[in-house]
Amino acid sequence: MTESAQRRPKRAGRRGGDSGTRAAILDAARRQFGEHGYDAATIRAIAAVAEVNPALVHHFYGTKEQLFAAAMRIPVVPSEVINALAPESPEHIGEALVRTLLAAWEAADIREAFLGLVRSAATSEQGAAMLREFVTGTILAAVAQMAGGGPDEAGRRYRASLAASQVVGLAFTRYLLRLEPIASASADDLVAAIGPVIQRYLTGDLAG
Amino acid sequence: MTESAQRRPKRAGRRGGDSGTRAAILDAARRQFGEHGYDAATIRAIAAVAEVNPALVHHFYGTKEQLFAAAMRIPVVPSEVINALAPESPEHIGEALVRTLLAAWEAADIREAFLGLVRSAATSEQGAAMLREFVTGTILAAVAQMAGGGPDEAGRRYRASLAASQVVGLAFTRYLLRLEPIASASADDLVAAIGPVIQRYLTGDLAG
Repeated sequence: MTESAQRRPKRAGRRGGDSGTRAAILDAARRQFGEHGYDAATIRAIAAVAEVNPALVHHFYGTKEQLFAAAMRIPVVPSEVINALAPESPEHIGEALVRTLLAAWEAADIREAFLGLVRSAATSEQGAAMLREFVTGTILAAVAQMAGGGPDEAGRRYRASLAASQVVGLAFTRYLLRLEPIASASADDLVAAIGPVIQRYLTGDLAG
Repeated sequence: MTESAQRRPKRAGRRGGDSGTRAAILDAARRQFGEHGYDAATIRAIAAVAEVNPALVHHFYGTKEQLFAAAMRIPVVPSEVINALAPESPEHIGEALVRTLLAAWEAADIREAFLGLVRSAATSEQGAAMLREFVTGTILAAVAQMAGGGPDEAGRRYRASLAASQVVGLAFTRYLLRLEPIASASADDLVAAIGPVIQRYLTGDLAG
């Protein structure tokens, strides 16, 4: 069966070639994984939303796990976060990190991808592994650049995991739990309240 | 059909009467809701784990939503958390809250109930509503007792929601994400690192 035969006719006129179809599959996968979590999402449902044959999903992306990896790739690559923080002076890195993340989450596609990852991490080991990887790639890398982390690799990892706990908790309560008033607080207020906390975790004295 | 006829024979000799059966159903419900989230969990699967007829689950607990409410009732009632914090001096309330929660989460049944609530909150509005209620009942009530919250109700709620973001983030990264080294850090280290953050949120100057 050729690819065009696998697609439903009504899609044929709307998308040209592989790239449009691939984008539709990834978009449907992000929504299904995000809404239902890794375990409950199915290739069949993803194919239905994308309006393609399930066999085509397998053809392009292989297994459910491989599709998940492709779909949940966060649209903010870690290096972009690092670059955004690089010009900041070390004593304002906490505020800069909170401001950068809140600005990224303003974009619906980035926010939904991140929340999908958090939802999947809450309900599957695949999701947890991917969120660990993302957190390590962004926050730990940022810490490694700073003097506060010092030469002690274990200490840097501890600082990064503390910062991650606040960052993930912020996203969870603001966007998933929608707990007020943090859910509707302004970015400026949250940067002022939480920035110094991240700063403490990354460069402060954690023993007292 | 009588209750004993609805149960499978092999359970008959192991549990005596309603209370044992009810406990088995709630235990199975907590595990199913916790592992799969609210949407994916089914009365049928819960009944199978509890080794009872699905009709008996409905008889005892009504709808899936009512069963969820009964099963996910956290074994730490908010008033116990408040009582544990009451003897603390106001300037150490942050450390006391972190220490109280970490101690509660050491107990597997309390930890699993809380994590089940977090998982359900990540994937369903029912779960989110219940976690909001729990967080508001514990943390907000603790804040309301303290001078730092002041007479300003909106300010107290903001402080409580900030503290909740760190508390939920700690549970999420330590137990669900299992991000190292926060996952295996000692309670003493975490109290020293995170206690002052909760203190800041509850009583500090949040504007800078």
